[in-house]
Amino acid sequence: MSAAPTSIPPKSPRGRRPLHVAVAGATGAVGEELLRLLDERDFPLASLRLLASARSAGTTLRFRGTEIPVEELTDASFRGTDVAFFSCGGDRSLRFAPAAVASGAVVVDNSSAYRMDPKVPLVVPEINGDAALAHEGILAVPNCTTIVFLMGVAPLHREARLVRAVCSSYQAASGAGRSALLEYEAQVRARAEGREPAAKALPRVLVGNVIPQVDVFLPDGSTKEEVKLDRETRKILGDDRVRVAATCVRVPVPRAHSVSCALEFERPMTPERAREVLASAPGVVLRDLPERASVDGKPAREYPTPLDVSGRLEVFVGRLRADPSREGGLMLWAVGDQLLKGAAWNAVQIAELLIERGRL
Amino acid sequence: MSAAPTSIPPKSPRGRRPLHVAVAGATGAVGEELLRLLDERDFPLASLRLLASARSAGTTLRFRGTEIPVEELTDASFRGTDVAFFSCGGDRSLRFAPAAVASGAVVVDNSSAYRMDPKVPLVVPEINGDAALAHEGILAVPNCTTIVFLMGVAPLHREARLVRAVCSSYQAASGAGRSALLEYEAQVRARAEGREPAAKALPRVLVGNVIPQVDVFLPDGSTKEEVKLDRETRKILGDDRVRVAATCVRVPVPRAHSVSCALEFERPMTPERAREVLASAPGVVLRDLPERASVDGKPAREYPTPLDVSGRLEVFVGRLRADPSREGGLMLWAVGDQLLKGAAWNAVQIAELLIERGRL
Repeated sequence: MSAAPTSIPPKSPRGRRPLHVAVAGATGAVGEELLRLLDERDFPLASLRLLASARSAGTTLRFRGTEIPVEELTDASFRGTDVAFFSCGGDRSLRFAPAAVASGAVVVDNSSAYRMDPKVPLVVPEINGDAALAHEGILAVPNCTTIVFLMGVAPLHREARLVRAVCSSYQAASGAGRSALLEYEAQVRARAEGREPAAKALPRVLVGNVIPQVDVFLPDGSTKEEVKLDRETRKILGDDRVRVAATCVRVPVPRAHSVSCALEFERPMTPERAREVLASAPGVVLRDLPERASVDGKPAREYPTPLDVSGRLEVFVGRLRADPSREGGLMLWAVGDQLLKGAAWNAVQIAELLIERGRL
Repeated sequence: MSAAPTSIPPKSPRGRRPLHVAVAGATGAVGEELLRLLDERDFPLASLRLLASARSAGTTLRFRGTEIPVEELTDASFRGTDVAFFSCGGDRSLRFAPAAVASGAVVVDNSSAYRMDPKVPLVVPEINGDAALAHEGILAVPNCTTIVFLMGVAPLHREARLVRAVCSSYQAASGAGRSALLEYEAQVRARAEGREPAAKALPRVLVGNVIPQVDVFLPDGSTKEEVKLDRETRKILGDDRVRVAATCVRVPVPRAHSVSCALEFERPMTPERAREVLASAPGVVLRDLPERASVDGKPAREYPTPLDVSGRLEVFVGRLRADPSREGGLMLWAVGDQLLKGAAWNAVQIAELLIERGRL
């Protein structure tokens, strides 16, 4: 499959001056992608500070040919920092983001800690970029599955107003962090060698299995991940009426989340119109056209899968078709690299947006 | 997880006399399970004839300590046969089932060839067993995903009348046959050894991936598998009103299909009532109660996964909760071994039902 044309510029914009950047959680799965993006996009850096827990402090990470020391994350870490990216879990965001803001830094937080805080913008730049401008020091990156879902659905919402979505997710191991990814890879080797795979980072064995649990359970039988999809969607779309019924499932995929969606709109949405809208939506790649006539003459179609989309910044959409169970409803399949658009890239995009708008 | 109590008797019923049985597709993935079940359940056999394509003819299969020759499937294969199980694809069912019926055999067909034929009962014994009695020589086993879905949903339909279901499936490699299972296993070894996995039996690489295509595409962008779920549901429930919007996805699981469902009923259905109904539903195991208090005090729940359910005859149901997007709606997760309840076991059950009712 050839690379699709993309509207994403390959380099970060230039602001008034290069920025002092701190990355909290630099040694994690998202931190690694964030550093790669800052490098590849030639992000305007005056300095780069790498922060992590005491356990990782003392090591170094290579960045643009230099070994940079990893320092322990403390309240004093943010003196002189312009932008602090946080990807080290909600507890540490709650503990240290206020200190970063007090030091004058703008915090872009990948955790769930501040997402539903009314004072914190919850931003997907292609969808609600203007919301970023109203920040009071902290901006939140939405949940990775919410981002993949909304990148495919928000352009349609603007046309026909989404009122209800039923979603089932197919979430990658790395969405649960580096330890879960390493556990999955060890399980693949165990299975190939006929040994019994062991589960510790994830609640069940993942290789050869699917696990209908992402994040912890709530008393009503839903998981936190499922509730995030519902609540964050309303906040990002700025629409109190829309409801999302989600079932979130971990699948044995190293990278990239997929979401199967049945969408109900206020006004009818045909697959034809949805294709037109999504073909020109920023950050979206449509993979839904007939790919080839298959050997036996049966109609074949292209569609995105996690393997194709891993490493890509865009969200890929396919399997567009009318909902056979509801007049005017639409079915859709969206796939995105949850470490990139679902986390690190969305965070870098927020910083780039603030640079472009003269706020950084 | 300990074995749940089950209402399935461990042995086949005795009829008036032992039966002359033929298995067409004896060397396939479903055929293998069928032979295992006939053996383990001490099915009342007068004789057993194993049939396959010319390619497999001439080999033997071991059954109850005897090597039985595999013969080529022809029109002449069914002389003296009482019951013929077909699991060798729709084309061969269409070609040879009429000859079997003409020879006086009752055909239990695992293919999709006759399922929507109005003269052919489409039977899940726990749901519409009586329909089997009206057969005219051929009875059809529903699609495997339809069976897993309906085993969890039909008991609730009887209470509250299902009007709409939105389903996303997580289908195992072996659902595409033995060649797909072997391909998946080869891909696991390739991945573990750092080689590039190859795809031939399945439309894309499956290891580390999910493929939103099961069966072939139709012009409207849906797949045949997705349409089967919708149509077969109406025929099995005997309710023309119910509609199923399905997205069918192959996942890197060797065995057992899972289905995530959002259900809408004519009358409200609470999770509490659904648990009561499913706890006493025949052939269903409920795995939805709190399993243990987790170490950190967060509520933990049990739920079925394909690894737990592989090799089991029942369909397992969990993740029961109210639909946050629709008053009175219910969310549910069902898992079943598609080679057993989704195919071979459902076929044997149909034969056992005919024996019990004195029709064989």
